[in-house]
Amino acid sequence: MAQKVLIKGNEAIGEAAIMAGCRHFFGYPITPQNEVAEYISKRMPQVGGCFLQAESELAAINMVYGAAGAGARVMTSSSSPGISLMQEGISYIAASELPCLIVNVMRGGPGLGGIQPSQADYFQATKGGGHGDYRLVVLAPSTIQEMIDLIVEGFDIADQYRNPVMILADGMLGQMMEPVVLEPKKRIERQLPAKDWATTGCDGSRPRNVINSLFMIPEQLEQRNLVLIDKYKRIEQNEVQYQSIDIEGADAVLVAYGTMARIARTVAKKAKELGISVGILRPITLWPFPYDAVAAIGDIPNVKAVFSIEMSAGQMVEDVKLGISGKKPVYFYGRTGGMIPSPNEVLDYICDVLEVR
Amino acid sequence: MAQKVLIKGNEAIGEAAIMAGCRHFFGYPITPQNEVAEYISKRMPQVGGCFLQAESELAAINMVYGAAGAGARVMTSSSSPGISLMQEGISYIAASELPCLIVNVMRGGPGLGGIQPSQADYFQATKGGGHGDYRLVVLAPSTIQEMIDLIVEGFDIADQYRNPVMILADGMLGQMMEPVVLEPKKRIERQLPAKDWATTGCDGSRPRNVINSLFMIPEQLEQRNLVLIDKYKRIEQNEVQYQSIDIEGADAVLVAYGTMARIARTVAKKAKELGISVGILRPITLWPFPYDAVAAIGDIPNVKAVFSIEMSAGQMVEDVKLGISGKKPVYFYGRTGGMIPSPNEVLDYICDVLEVR
Amino acid sequence: MAQKVLIKGNEAIGEAAIMAGCRHFFGYPITPQNEVAEYISKRMPQVGGCFLQAESELAAINMVYGAAGAGARVMTSSSSPGISLMQEGISYIAASELPCLIVNVMRGGPGLGGIQPSQADYFQATKGGGHGDYRLVVLAPSTIQEMIDLIVEGFDIADQYRNPVMILADGMLGQMMEPVVLEPKKRIERQLPAKDWATTGCDGSRPRNVINSLFMIPEQLEQRNLVLIDKYKRIEQNEVQYQSIDIEGADAVLVAYGTMARIARTVAKKAKELGISVGILRPITLWPFPYDAVAAIGDIPNVKAVFSIEMSAGQMVEDVKLGISGKKPVYFYGRTGGMIPSPNEVLDYICDVLEVR
Amino acid sequence: MAQKVLIKGNEAIGEAAIMAGCRHFFGYPITPQNEVAEYISKRMPQVGGCFLQAESELAAINMVYGAAGAGARVMTSSSSPGISLMQEGISYIAASELPCLIVNVMRGGPGLGGIQPSQADYFQATKGGGHGDYRLVVLAPSTIQEMIDLIVEGFDIADQYRNPVMILADGMLGQMMEPVVLEPKKRIERQLPAKDWATTGCDGSRPRNVINSLFMIPEQLEQRNLVLIDKYKRIEQNEVQYQSIDIEGADAVLVAYGTMARIARTVAKKAKELGISVGILRPITLWPFPYDAVAAIGDIPNVKAVFSIEMSAGQMVEDVKLGISGKKPVYFYGRTGGMIPSPNEVLDYICDVLEVR
Repeated sequence: MAQKVLIKGNEAIGEAAIMAGCRHFFGYPITPQNEVAEYISKRMPQVGGCFLQAESELAAINMVYGAAGAGARVMTSSSSPGISLMQEGISYIAASELPCLIVNVMRGGPGLGGIQPSQADYFQATKGGGHGDYRLVVLAPSTIQEMIDLIVEGFDIADQYRNPVMILADGMLGQMMEPVVLEPKKRIERQLPAKDWATTGCDGSRPRNVINSLFMIPEQLEQRNLVLIDKYKRIEQNEVQYQSIDIEGADAVLVAYGTMARIARTVAKKAKELGISVGILRPITLWPFPYDAVAAIGDIPNVKAVFSIEMSAGQMVEDVKLGISGKKPVYFYGRTGGMIPSPNEVLDYICDVLEVR
Repeated sequence: MAQKVLIKGNEAIGEAAIMAGCRHFFGYPITPQNEVAEYISKRMPQVGGCFLQAESELAAINMVYGAAGAGARVMTSSSSPGISLMQEGISYIAASELPCLIVNVMRGGPGLGGIQPSQADYFQATKGGGHGDYRLVVLAPSTIQEMIDLIVEGFDIADQYRNPVMILADGMLGQMMEPVVLEPKKRIERQLPAKDWATTGCDGSRPRNVINSLFMIPEQLEQRNLVLIDKYKRIEQNEVQYQSIDIEGADAVLVAYGTMARIARTVAKKAKELGISVGILRPITLWPFPYDAVAAIGDIPNVKAVFSIEMSAGQMVEDVKLGISGKKPVYFYGRTGGMIPSPNEVLDYICDVLEVR
Repeated sequence: MAQKVLIKGNEAIGEAAIMAGCRHFFGYPITPQNEVAEYISKRMPQVGGCFLQAESELAAINMVYGAAGAGARVMTSSSSPGISLMQEGISYIAASELPCLIVNVMRGGPGLGGIQPSQADYFQATKGGGHGDYRLVVLAPSTIQEMIDLIVEGFDIADQYRNPVMILADGMLGQMMEPVVLEPKKRIERQLPAKDWATTGCDGSRPRNVINSLFMIPEQLEQRNLVLIDKYKRIEQNEVQYQSIDIEGADAVLVAYGTMARIARTVAKKAKELGISVGILRPITLWPFPYDAVAAIGDIPNVKAVFSIEMSAGQMVEDVKLGISGKKPVYFYGRTGGMIPSPNEVLDYICDVLEVR
Repeated sequence: MAQKVLIKGNEAIGEAAIMAGCRHFFGYPITPQNEVAEYISKRMPQVGGCFLQAESELAAINMVYGAAGAGARVMTSSSSPGISLMQEGISYIAASELPCLIVNVMRGGPGLGGIQPSQADYFQATKGGGHGDYRLVVLAPSTIQEMIDLIVEGFDIADQYRNPVMILADGMLGQMMEPVVLEPKKRIERQLPAKDWATTGCDGSRPRNVINSLFMIPEQLEQRNLVLIDKYKRIEQNEVQYQSIDIEGADAVLVAYGTMARIARTVAKKAKELGISVGILRPITLWPFPYDAVAAIGDIPNVKAVFSIEMSAGQMVEDVKLGISGKKPVYFYGRTGGMIPSPNEVLDYICDVLEVR
């Protein structure tokens, strides 16, 4: 069995990408994800890959667009403001049905904000910060090991569905160190389709491949959208991932992802000491969101309240409410600007709502 | 009383901005909103204002940032892909609490898409396509006259709350002509605060004003966010606008905005002929969304179904569901890629759902 | 008679431009010319003009291109690296025969270099740093008063010939203060042609004006070049300016411009004390270069040597040699990188060459 | 012995670069040099190299800067306007003493100009279109075979002196086909210094390498300039190349490079038929210019006139005059804008000057 090594989150992102066969990386520096690019800049030459620091985030995402169109496993990484600069490009990539991996190590916003961890780009990632009807598959690891697993799986999902995949991490996960096994713990076997659509150069032996998102005739543009809509439906049916902890019999359920899911576990433990039974639903895919799993909570009799806890002013809580659909009261607790809620303040809020103590 | 004139939507946008005292416009060409800039380029010199075609959408939104920071009434206009390019800038403007007007004449997407009308940027506009917890006030006119009114009011709202306001129009509204009175029909008197925060130059007679969104200390960044959150709450309480038509006693309620609300009225008329009573809820502010008005529909006994009809793959429908909160079934009907649903196809869908005919 | 005021060189540049009727300025910050933009940013609003800090030097020069095409008196200002970034745009403006004023407050190079004064952009200014056969009129003031005069005259020359004019100053002239009269000392009356070629908007009452530098048919492109060549010949005949000091009877002649011409006067004074008669030829127009005046030195019997003294590694010296055409020995003395030759070291060099002492 | 193949000039540029060990190419499309990039885009993957189409010429030259700093053999290629956009970057590379190859396939200018061949960027290439005192080694092939040789040698010269080298070709040379041997005919053995200054990553086993052109202390910046000046002197002493044909005994000497040197040979042949003896001096290095060889012409008794013939409005003629230094009359004949002088019109001009016929 593989040896455990101690590694920083941002470096694990880089190593996992290499592991997944990614050989092209384009990016532009921004804290707190700089170690991703730094690590990859060292590793790529060793494996014959291409690392390039572009002149801006716009240049980077459009290089990703180009490399993805040529069939390469390609990745970029940035943090909140940088990801905003990529919104046009991301929409183009999704519209052109191209696979790639985009990492967002979220920091506090809006604006320049700060460099401390945050989860305030949830809407941008899951609802589409760019224009038009498109979706990213959004994966939210809560440990370094899971980060490695999801990056490897993310590349596979991207290739399977020809769709950009986003890893939504935060500054805490990027900067912390954990012991990991440097290989994906589980790797679901996927039948990846051949990239026969890629623009790999044409010598006349096959019709010319064209990567395009421009359709001036609305009937044709609608047709492209119908293809996308159908694909998104398949993803919603097949790719939802979440972790469910002690939900049956719980008095209250916390919905949390990423770093906040780590806090949630401590909250649950402390709550138990107070005699309160707290379950946790941890979405691993933020899109597709585990609406059904959340909806099921609505049918558990003794659950008195559902809490969306976030490092934001309240974003995922909308999806939680959509899932619960009025069957249980939904509460929100969050902190912003790089502040991470402590287990105690979350517990206090739960106690207040449940009128315990 | 003022004379009626026949005017194109995009030109009305320009004239209304001048009327509202806007004297700075920065933009970059994109169909189907080019007449906005073209019209303003002629009018600005006549009123001593500044029209500038920037070198890109990024340049344009950052010029808006600068002019807004200096206290000017300033505006930009673009269409879907161009608005995506502005997401970083918009987040900066919102974070810096600056007033400005951003017009999005939506076209079919995603990607380059096409130049026909669409409503597929709803999520981007209302949930925040940029990073961080921020909100735009989003106004959705459905006639040219209302466009004029909302632009004038939009500048006032922006100034009152020190927040960017977006006019969410579409290619249909931009290109169509209607007879209008070239003055706001109603102009709510607002007590606009003095712009004593503006960077108008400092001769030492007052402390230096600084426009900023960078806060390296998380406690300070959270503080800025708390100010924003509090402001957004006040906007949600005071600024919701919607139009309600024949909802009491309706069998079904259509929720629709902009061009789709025009279709909805024809649908309702045709439905009446079939003996079906169809009410309409037309959100005028998309954010803040009229959740309470939607929620109230949930309590009307004979309403059998609520329909969100959109020129998208289904975006506003999430807000409708959040408002209804499980009390009525919510359905969605939409077309994408520049296709506009016809009244008949919408009616057919309603009849299918209601099992009429 | 007008009052004398004490003013910094960079500010005098700004005030002179306003005085000359310049109402549009586009630029991007760079030391040591920032006071130019800073001063103009304050003055433009007072006179109803437009000051705009562009997003880059490229953006700035292309805004100059646009404003010049529309017939405005327009100006930009930068320092060495920034001027390099403008080379494509300058070639376009010259090719399109548009008048404008470009100020280069030279600093030490090459590369990022330093912020101290230099004259190392002489070749770039006079031979054409951009592509193709074009010429700038290059004016080199050596006092603040002359800077004011030449800026006012520069705008006139630009308009008369429809050609970009460059003011070639250096960090010393930009930063120093001198008492000046804030009006041009002499203003040559020029018959400025109407700007009937300007793209001021077309209502059908005249044929559409087009500003263009693209000619795909080589015969047409040659035609444009012949027009330029003819114009440059007229400028060479009519616009040469220089100052000649004590050349008749001199043992040696110094050719020097700008800051170096100030040093030259001290050198000449000190030389006189040593019994050496040193004349000075100070080119005021660097292009057209006063070749005839230099050639005439070749015919003065007792002149033993001609010296080109520069804050560069030797650039103008080529033009001096072209003028002298072998009739006298031509020597060069210079310092680089922001170092200014002292009068003593120049004198030492002269004495060495003349074998005096 | 190697086989002859028929190849287009632009493709020969690409193949020669690969042959020279160049493994990094960054560029941006512009006619008439697009086949350079197209060819290299196919070949680089075959040899494990990196081809990247940058987002602009600015991006391209700065990527060249980066790769050169890391010690790679790197190249870019463009045509006149694109080369203007690179002037800042070129000055930075020269200031940082980095080796690289820059190809300019000149087209008619100024401005957008046209896509036909030209030699009007001579000044830009040889005098320095960027700011500051720096020099490029400028090589001017006049056959495809020589292009191959000079590209291979150019990379060596660049490495030997740590200086950017420019290949100054024109659209004619880029587009024509000639039979060539795909290896350098002669390859001068050069002792290339180790690139121990390159930023190849630092593990602590040696002091950190820094690539820099910023020196805020003028004494230090002057020091860098003295190093450059000394290097340029060595290049002038050791690297001048030219071809001399039938100069001894000539009535007239044509100085011409590149495509014009091909015309010159036909002119000489036709002149001979008229009984006029015409010699040719063909500079192969435009910088360092063969001043001594030109000067020597001044001492040949029977030479009545020297002609600089160019596809420009007269640029190299200044260097010819500097070389001749008044000893013979120097004439200029040229065409611009993509027009190539015919042998007959050149001959006519020569006859007019010599008052033959």
